[in-house]
Amino acid sequence: MKILVIHGPNLNMLGRRQPTIYGNKTLGEIDSLLREKARELDVEVSIFQSNSEGALIDFLQRESADAQGILINPGALSHYGLSLRDALADTPLPTVEVHLSHIYAREKWRQRSVIAPIARGGISGLGWRGYIAALEILVGLISEGAQGE
Amino acid sequence: MKILVIHGPNLNMLGRRQPTIYGNKTLGEIDSLLREKARELDVEVSIFQSNSEGALIDFLQRESADAQGILINPGALSHYGLSLRDALADTPLPTVEVHLSHIYAREKWRQRSVIAPIARGGISGLGWRGYIAALEILVGLISEGAQGE
Amino acid sequence: MKILVIHGPNLNMLGRRQPTIYGNKTLGEIDSLLREKARELDVEVSIFQSNSEGALIDFLQRESADAQGILINPGALSHYGLSLRDALADTPLPTVEVHLSHIYAREKWRQRSVIAPIARGGISGLGWRGYIAALEILVGLISEGAQGE
Amino acid sequence: MKILVIHGPNLNMLGRRQPTIYGNKTLGEIDSLLREKARELDVEVSIFQSNSEGALIDFLQRESADAQGILINPGALSHYGLSLRDALADTPLPTVEVHLSHIYAREKWRQRSVIAPIARGGISGLGWRGYIAALEILVGLISEGAQGE
Amino acid sequence: MKILVIHGPNLNMLGRRQPTIYGNKTLGEIDSLLREKARELDVEVSIFQSNSEGALIDFLQRESADAQGILINPGALSHYGLSLRDALADTPLPTVEVHLSHIYAREKWRQRSVIAPIARGGISGLGWRGYIAALEILVGLISEGAQGE
Amino acid sequence: MKILVIHGPNLNMLGRRQPTIYGNKTLGEIDSLLREKARELDVEVSIFQSNSEGALIDFLQRESADAQGILINPGALSHYGLSLRDALADTPLPTVEVHLSHIYAREKWRQRSVIAPIARGGISGLGWRGYIAALEILVGLISEGAQGE
Amino acid sequence: MKILVIHGPNLNMLGRRQPTIYGNKTLGEIDSLLREKARELDVEVSIFQSNSEGALIDFLQRESADAQGILINPGALSHYGLSLRDALADTPLPTVEVHLSHIYAREKWRQRSVIAPIARGGISGLGWRGYIAALEILVGLISEGAQGE
Amino acid sequence: MKILVIHGPNLNMLGRRQPTIYGNKTLGEIDSLLREKARELDVEVSIFQSNSEGALIDFLQRESADAQGILINPGALSHYGLSLRDALADTPLPTVEVHLSHIYAREKWRQRSVIAPIARGGISGLGWRGYIAALEILVGLISEGAQGE
Amino acid sequence: MKILVIHGPNLNMLGRRQPTIYGNKTLGEIDSLLREKARELDVEVSIFQSNSEGALIDFLQRESADAQGILINPGALSHYGLSLRDALADTPLPTVEVHLSHIYAREKWRQRSVIAPIARGGISGLGWRGYIAALEILVGLISEGAQGE
Amino acid sequence: MKILVIHGPNLNMLGRRQPTIYGNKTLGEIDSLLREKARELDVEVSIFQSNSEGALIDFLQRESADAQGILINPGALSHYGLSLRDALADTPLPTVEVHLSHIYAREKWRQRSVIAPIARGGISGLGWRGYIAALEILVGLISEGAQGE
Amino acid sequence: MKILVIHGPNLNMLGRRQPTIYGNKTLGEIDSLLREKARELDVEVSIFQSNSEGALIDFLQRESADAQGILINPGALSHYGLSLRDALADTPLPTVEVHLSHIYAREKWRQRSVIAPIARGGISGLGWRGYIAALEILVGLISEGAQGE
Amino acid sequence: MKILVIHGPNLNMLGRRQPTIYGNKTLGEIDSLLREKARELDVEVSIFQSNSEGALIDFLQRESADAQGILINPGALSHYGLSLRDALADTPLPTVEVHLSHIYAREKWRQRSVIAPIARGGISGLGWRGYIAALEILVGLISEGAQGE
Repeated sequence: MKILVIHGPNLNMLGRRQPTIYGNKTLGEIDSLLREKARELDVEVSIFQSNSEGALIDFLQRESADAQGILINPGALSHYGLSLRDALADTPLPTVEVHLSHIYAREKWRQRSVIAPIARGGISGLGWRGYIAALEILVGLISEGAQGE
Repeated sequence: MKILVIHGPNLNMLGRRQPTIYGNKTLGEIDSLLREKARELDVEVSIFQSNSEGALIDFLQRESADAQGILINPGALSHYGLSLRDALADTPLPTVEVHLSHIYAREKWRQRSVIAPIARGGISGLGWRGYIAALEILVGLISEGAQGE
Repeated sequence: MKILVIHGPNLNMLGRRQPTIYGNKTLGEIDSLLREKARELDVEVSIFQSNSEGALIDFLQRESADAQGILINPGALSHYGLSLRDALADTPLPTVEVHLSHIYAREKWRQRSVIAPIARGGISGLGWRGYIAALEILVGLISEGAQGE
Repeated sequence: MKILVIHGPNLNMLGRRQPTIYGNKTLGEIDSLLREKARELDVEVSIFQSNSEGALIDFLQRESADAQGILINPGALSHYGLSLRDALADTPLPTVEVHLSHIYAREKWRQRSVIAPIARGGISGLGWRGYIAALEILVGLISEGAQGE
Repeated sequence: MKILVIHGPNLNMLGRRQPTIYGNKTLGEIDSLLREKARELDVEVSIFQSNSEGALIDFLQRESADAQGILINPGALSHYGLSLRDALADTPLPTVEVHLSHIYAREKWRQRSVIAPIARGGISGLGWRGYIAALEILVGLISEGAQGE
Repeated sequence: MKILVIHGPNLNMLGRRQPTIYGNKTLGEIDSLLREKARELDVEVSIFQSNSEGALIDFLQRESADAQGILINPGALSHYGLSLRDALADTPLPTVEVHLSHIYAREKWRQRSVIAPIARGGISGLGWRGYIAALEILVGLISEGAQGE
Repeated sequence: MKILVIHGPNLNMLGRRQPTIYGNKTLGEIDSLLREKARELDVEVSIFQSNSEGALIDFLQRESADAQGILINPGALSHYGLSLRDALADTPLPTVEVHLSHIYAREKWRQRSVIAPIARGGISGLGWRGYIAALEILVGLISEGAQGE
Repeated sequence: MKILVIHGPNLNMLGRRQPTIYGNKTLGEIDSLLREKARELDVEVSIFQSNSEGALIDFLQRESADAQGILINPGALSHYGLSLRDALADTPLPTVEVHLSHIYAREKWRQRSVIAPIARGGISGLGWRGYIAALEILVGLISEGAQGE
Repeated sequence: MKILVIHGPNLNMLGRRQPTIYGNKTLGEIDSLLREKARELDVEVSIFQSNSEGALIDFLQRESADAQGILINPGALSHYGLSLRDALADTPLPTVEVHLSHIYAREKWRQRSVIAPIARGGISGLGWRGYIAALEILVGLISEGAQGE
Repeated sequence: MKILVIHGPNLNMLGRRQPTIYGNKTLGEIDSLLREKARELDVEVSIFQSNSEGALIDFLQRESADAQGILINPGALSHYGLSLRDALADTPLPTVEVHLSHIYAREKWRQRSVIAPIARGGISGLGWRGYIAALEILVGLISEGAQGE
Repeated sequence: MKILVIHGPNLNMLGRRQPTIYGNKTLGEIDSLLREKARELDVEVSIFQSNSEGALIDFLQRESADAQGILINPGALSHYGLSLRDALADTPLPTVEVHLSHIYAREKWRQRSVIAPIARGGISGLGWRGYIAALEILVGLISEGAQGE
Repeated sequence: MKILVIHGPNLNMLGRRQPTIYGNKTLGEIDSLLREKARELDVEVSIFQSNSEGALIDFLQRESADAQGILINPGALSHYGLSLRDALADTPLPTVEVHLSHIYAREKWRQRSVIAPIARGGISGLGWRGYIAALEILVGLISEGAQGE
């Protein structure tokens, strides 16, 4: 089983970026934790970060054919990246949207995600732990082939 | 460590209630899974369900004094239960909001949670697994005394 | 055949309550007329009033298992009682929503019913006669097992 | 006693028109049921259908002088027919608005009736039975000269 | 010089129609006053009333070729008659919009006229006197060929 | 009979002010025409202009006691001068609101007058002729003591 | 194969009507071009124009039984003609909506078509050529029985 | 004279509840001050607190028959408690709404009270002193039988 | 201790101004009652009324340096007087906003005060008694130097 | 004559992408049909696809100098790609906007195109045929140098 | 060359007024810097401050005849001073709007300037330096007679 | 001291791009003027332009570490580039936003900048001079370490 892990704009700055909001861990550290959990769950992860919406879509189109699920933190593209949304909607893969900070408790414009309506579910505001939990649940859902449970 | 687990209106009907949306597990089964996970994490859980906002607030006021965290699925009160919101805001405890279905992908009125702005974070649309993950993360957050991580 | 008749907040005050808006009949008199019509139609009615949304949901969850239809005047809960709405939506029973006054001709906030979208139909502004007609039609619809007629 | 029964645009297509929404009965069949009920109630009905708002107003102006009540299904004119609304408001007759489908549970634009604020009451979503009940109640209201009952 | 005088839906009921709002004069009396003023100003008036938007447009298309100005009370079509608006915009003639009642002081929906943006000016709330003044000013404007005065 | 004529901010600049919108006549010329018409109608006019809302209210409070009607062009205060509105509402005098340009055909914010709801009627977009007609009609209305005509 | 071609209000004025917006061709010339193209495609066209929404619906109800497709330019009814919309929705025929001018680039109210949601597709702003292209494409779609291509 | 004093949800937590917003006094202390002031004014007070809207309505229905005025702090129900509003509107008693914090200077949703439109007046943001002043004024108003003063 | 008492536009007309809304007392009578209460509380009051926002700001800038609190009824400026608001916000003095009528129960535009967000609290709808209570509470707050009580 | 054909994000996935919405043809097949039609019309086409808004703008800036028209399907950038819009507006070339699906009949956010206001016209919902028709019409328009026809 | 420098309400309090927002310099110091820069640029400045919109308009009408440009900080009138806006629009002079604080980053109501649409340009949030830069640029623009540069 | 100068989409087309709006100077010429001014101020500038939001963020992340301020013209990204906004917010550097045209006087959508809330200040509508003034002021601000001046 292969899971795509996609990080949107500015997430490469984690650790240095407003730590009281986004936490102290760097993206490298989060990726290590994800890879570790992936080994534990015996799945493969393909991780990608870009500041360009076009590059994220290119990655998604190229990699989704032989993947089984998507874990994405779209960063600020969550709020206007309709092309990314369409790219996600074009795959048949279950998607879980993760946010480090609790976007539904921040500025009004951050409380609307254009990605949410095409996602299977989401985790918000629970820091790096949210990534790990999302990977674990996503694998659980795929393993069982559960649709509407 | 004690965690309050609060289930809002209609959640006592889980299992019978629109299973394609809310899943097949009954509330009793979810509570058993939560208790099992709590034992594994070596924490205490105090679980309560009511169809009445007033009763939920009474429980919260009575129990929060010697608890360390709150895990709540407010049901439809998420969208208008401002008294419940104030009761949660009056405690200093970190709160995680869980929804079985992905409220941000459903009717417009379900996409706004009045609870979210006073919660630490939220999990939405990931079924019963969301509860388990929320408990685990909440305990992790409290253990580390992590504030802004 | 059993029909649940549910009266929301303040309807116990009928007769004394702004008679130019709500009419002169007390709730007891309306209930008598409903029981009389029920005998005429040879059906059973189970009638309940409460000022508490939670109690209304409790009644609905307890009684709907062996009922065939619901006749409800949600009072002001029509406009914000999303938990009551979800409780109604969780039953498979056809629901008719009745209002004594014509809510669609009153204040703007009374013109939106959150119950309407999950009801089979509604009668508004026709006083106690609306209750009797609703009961008769509901029984007619159920008798014929008519779905989309 | 004479009651005007007015059917708006497209209602002449009933029976052929989306039966799962509007039912299987033709307009002729509904009119027969109305005439039958009128005989039973010992009142006269004057029935008219048109696809043109102007023709509906012409009928209303011509016939309302010696009528005692109005039963109207304005069809889609419910949502924008402000001239029809003014014509109804210009008569002193009590008006009941009937809809076969439950307009308050359909598209957003169907949930607002510009006729409702000048009507005595309304019945929505209860199929042909709604017409019969409306006639019966309207006659009851007029007979009693009930104003604010 | 020929002026078209156009009365929209329900204006044929003037005198009988809510006199506290629309005044006691019948449409016939207002038309007589207009004809009298026209004689005084030495211009011709062509007067037309209909309850049908289509008939009003037909009249306008047929008559505008040899007219020099338009005086119109569109009735409730003021608020939604976009076809009538386009028909007026298609003529090069200066148009004055008249309302008997003060539409900008009534219900919110009456405060927006879709005709106003293509009119030269408007008179509202001044009863039958508004018609007479509008005719006099329109003739004055045309006589002087004044554009932006 | 005495009529108050009130000109709001910037109207003292008429003639020099965007003539394609507001016309070529100066305020002095319009005032002369008004005085001439007043003589013809055998009434007195008391005319006042100011760029300050406070000064306009002072004038109104001082002069309204022995006046019988108000003719006002509030200029841009039409759109936000709520204190002026209250001052007008505090007098029992009939008020006619005049605008040289057709405010209902201009920018969106000019299309809402906060004065209109407390005025008897209005004339808009008909240049200086609108003032003369307003004076004549106002005198006519007062002479007849007509209320709801 | 028979195609209904329906022209809404004011389209009979084409050629004389604001040519910089709507082009120089008269409706007769456009109809000739449509008939010519119909011969070339070996299909029949039934063409109708009216300024009255009711007459357009009458035509549609009468003619749609033995037609296979609809080509409609609803004129300004596009923006409020909900009765026409329902009449179109009541037929099972594929509908193409044509506009001579580019309504999505004009006034805000012209940018919303209430017809669009029940149309198969639309062509806007391409002048008379849009009609010809629409006829050709509509015939292509019907010939192939293509549904969701 | 008897005055009902009603405290809504969460007010039983005063003193412990965000003191910088709600002050240091407990509800018990405020009630003592109210009782003291009542003795001084020689009136009776009947005080009630509940976290449940239904219970508040039950109290109001039971007690209002022999009371002369109502002093209420509805807590967060101020913003959505439409059933409580209707219960208050059903009594003929003058009502004064009190808030400890200045709700009109806080979050947007706190700035709208659904209770205000049926209240005689309100005091907001003046802490426990607001309660005492409200009691004194309410008694003054009732004593004088002043209606519109 | 010195308290500034500021009355906005039209308040000099109290007594004559719509007494059913604003009461029978003149401003002079209210000022006398305020001065009497001030003597009782042993504080100084400096009272000012103007119909001009500019003059109110001039007064405030001139007098606030040696005052300890502000009691203001901004009249209609409450709803748009942003300059007055900034002038108040520029002083460090606690401000209480008083309205004779209950602005939150009147027209929609009166329900929003731009002054409220910078005020310590407000009293609305309680007539002249509101002024007296406001003065007493303001003095109480200042005496105790209470900030967040 | 050279026409730029621009395909926005995700259009490279055509054929695989939700075929019931976007059709079965791949982008390569559509491009072949366009090239064939171009040969038939004796014009040159320069075709480009990218998932990156920046790359699309680069192409447009580089190629528009020696082109005569633009045919663009902006994909989801239609709804927020204001930079692309400005780039198109900066060229003097006539632009036709094509959509495979009928965007005006889909989700609300798809019904607003920020590109439409700067386009000459558009075709929506007519599948690959829309591209061919657009090319043919665009060439016709350019050949005739027709501006406002 | 003469430049009008206009300071709106409350700007006379600079230095004392919330220094973290508006800076430490008094208005006198800013005026001195402006005069110094004017000497350096060899232009004349005519400086005026008032708390009254009317007085600002009076100044503008009186002085604009022999001036060549306007530099204005309208204070809070930026957000509602439509009379001031019209006065500025009535002059043909280029206007630059200056704000000490960055209004587009503050409260929502401060982010809309009704002056901006009639200004040549604006500087916001750059403190006293914004004034100096605005003067320098304004003189540069006028010197070159540059229109659309 | 090093200042980053960032030009967003389409700014590389300056000079050719709508000169009446954006001026005649090319980006190269503006950059030369900026470099000249930088030499005069004895600071270093690092200039970058791209049509891709991702590339702009990459530049910002790479270069901001050893810079002291940012001067940015985000082009149309001003209105939706939330990722760019977050990238700017992630640096601690003072940012000045410059626009050649006066965006607050243009289309509604151009009047909202998502960048403004995180900028120190802005200059709009003053052409290339705005860039030079912004550079000068930015250097002044940094030199003085002025925070809230």
